[in-house]
Amino acid sequence: MKPSSPSNLPPVLKRLGELIGPDLERTNSIILEQLNSQVELIPKMGAHIIESGGKRLRPVLTLLVARLFGYAGQDDALLAAVVEFIHTATLLHDDVVDKSDTRRGRATANSVWGSKAPVLVGDYLFSRSFQILVAHGDLKVLQIIADACAVISEGEVMQLVATNDLATSEEHYLEVVQRKTATLFAAAAQIGAVLNHRPASEEESLARYGLLLGKAYQVVDDALDYSATNEVLGKSVGDDFQEGKITLPVIHAYRHGSPEERQFWSRCLERKDFPEGALQRAIQLVRERGSLDYAMDRAKAFAGEAKAQLARLPDTPEREAMAMLADFSFERSY
Amino acid sequence: MKPSSPSNLPPVLKRLGELIGPDLERTNSIILEQLNSQVELIPKMGAHIIESGGKRLRPVLTLLVARLFGYAGQDDALLAAVVEFIHTATLLHDDVVDKSDTRRGRATANSVWGSKAPVLVGDYLFSRSFQILVAHGDLKVLQIIADACAVISEGEVMQLVATNDLATSEEHYLEVVQRKTATLFAAAAQIGAVLNHRPASEEESLARYGLLLGKAYQVVDDALDYSATNEVLGKSVGDDFQEGKITLPVIHAYRHGSPEERQFWSRCLERKDFPEGALQRAIQLVRERGSLDYAMDRAKAFAGEAKAQLARLPDTPEREAMAMLADFSFERSY
Repeated sequence: MKPSSPSNLPPVLKRLGELIGPDLERTNSIILEQLNSQVELIPKMGAHIIESGGKRLRPVLTLLVARLFGYAGQDDALLAAVVEFIHTATLLHDDVVDKSDTRRGRATANSVWGSKAPVLVGDYLFSRSFQILVAHGDLKVLQIIADACAVISEGEVMQLVATNDLATSEEHYLEVVQRKTATLFAAAAQIGAVLNHRPASEEESLARYGLLLGKAYQVVDDALDYSATNEVLGKSVGDDFQEGKITLPVIHAYRHGSPEERQFWSRCLERKDFPEGALQRAIQLVRERGSLDYAMDRAKAFAGEAKAQLARLPDTPEREAMAMLADFSFERSY
Repeated sequence: MKPSSPSNLPPVLKRLGELIGPDLERTNSIILEQLNSQVELIPKMGAHIIESGGKRLRPVLTLLVARLFGYAGQDDALLAAVVEFIHTATLLHDDVVDKSDTRRGRATANSVWGSKAPVLVGDYLFSRSFQILVAHGDLKVLQIIADACAVISEGEVMQLVATNDLATSEEHYLEVVQRKTATLFAAAAQIGAVLNHRPASEEESLARYGLLLGKAYQVVDDALDYSATNEVLGKSVGDDFQEGKITLPVIHAYRHGSPEERQFWSRCLERKDFPEGALQRAIQLVRERGSLDYAMDRAKAFAGEAKAQLARLPDTPEREAMAMLADFSFERSY
């Protein structure tokens, strides 16, 4: 979430600005402060990717939950910064693995500095995160984040292994989504509760909310790869297609495709042989087969389940914003 | 250190086998156990690199120090396994960054599985390490390891930035060596003392011992790249030269070279233009200019300083083995 140009902001982001704007600013300061290193390239690359914005959804969750329970200390911003660091580290490694050129409308770190440095700077961000958490000193938070990191990297490996494999099931796809994306959303929300020493049941509801919200966002993200324009997506449309990633629209369109359509998908995604106009054809097929609608419906269901988790939490403006965030997951076009 | 073929072992490794053989076996079991993941590729790749052996110097340090102070629990092997995990993660990422083909006489993970998966499996090993440390529950050990990881990744970035730059000073080179290699040696030795709740002065001596030992090993390693044979080195001789790494023999030979020799170094290392027989010429030059001897002398000095740190520790067989390890650093030809 960038504080600039508030007039264009969707209502939920405006609301977040009102509720936790100063907290987000504290978080941003901590991020820049903690990126500090004698090794120049580290703050440079860190700032390149972190300042490019993004919606800061994960730190927002930590801050909202902390505020929901009336947290009045300063450590919420510290933990929110850690969550963004972990996210940034995974982005750096992701983009190296995917050889992506753009992210959030800007050149990726690997396209500016080559693929070597982002691997190492990502490692630095991981390490720095654990240094901050150790200084914070709460073993429970450390456990949540360490567990999340392990699950995320497993999810990334699972995704890599499933690349170019049209036999990937919807279940397997959702497992990858849960691990590589939703787990950090869950951790971000949960540590907000831990910071407030809330009972286990509330911690669990918040982790579940984060998990379902993360699933909704990732499923929509994957659908947008076949529907958005480059400008709204902030990355190249069709990236997943070119990279052979087997996402929900593809799984659905392949399952319901004619023999000729299945051959098309197989040629592109498994044999990596893209005939002229392949992306346009793919976009057309996922529309015609109702695969985009199917994916958006699944996302909508996850968002609905996410909202249901909020029922037992205090009825505060923060809870309302969390419900808005769930709706926003499938309303957004970026 | 492989338990096999003990007859060929150098005396120090034989001695280590006698002193901490069972501890090393417990460590190996924990490593294999903790490598477990539902995601098949993870234990596969982990085992590929960990089972290929190596001297296990870092876990050996943790085990020796724990035993030096009479540690009788089981957590020494747990921490030793973590140290080896961290080391393995950095190797996986290193080999991706360097595009290395062989390591410890075997194909590197990236040459078997491509460069993508090792990035992610390295991340898994980092995360798993912190999970284990969190379960162990000692914030001091967590701090030592998190600090080490941050310093190591900074060192790797520093090394990357200095690649192909003959203006790199000896001081800068040694700073990189200290960060990327020696820091984990220091951490490995120090946590053995922490496990025994030893006073800060002993912890410090052991950390200094590890740091100096690590410097000696890395300086020798870099010298061997210009002198060993492929079989003894376990990796390709001349790798550093081909990759444009500015190590001590090169820094010395360049500084003391004739104008024509300096042109040769610059052509190869800065312009990456290797005339026929370049590696042979480089090997000849570092010999003729006394640069190998110079590097080995520096290593010997570090090893001597390392031994001096042991003076105030209990006079036990473990301390003696630690002194032998220091001598071994510059006596070995691999």
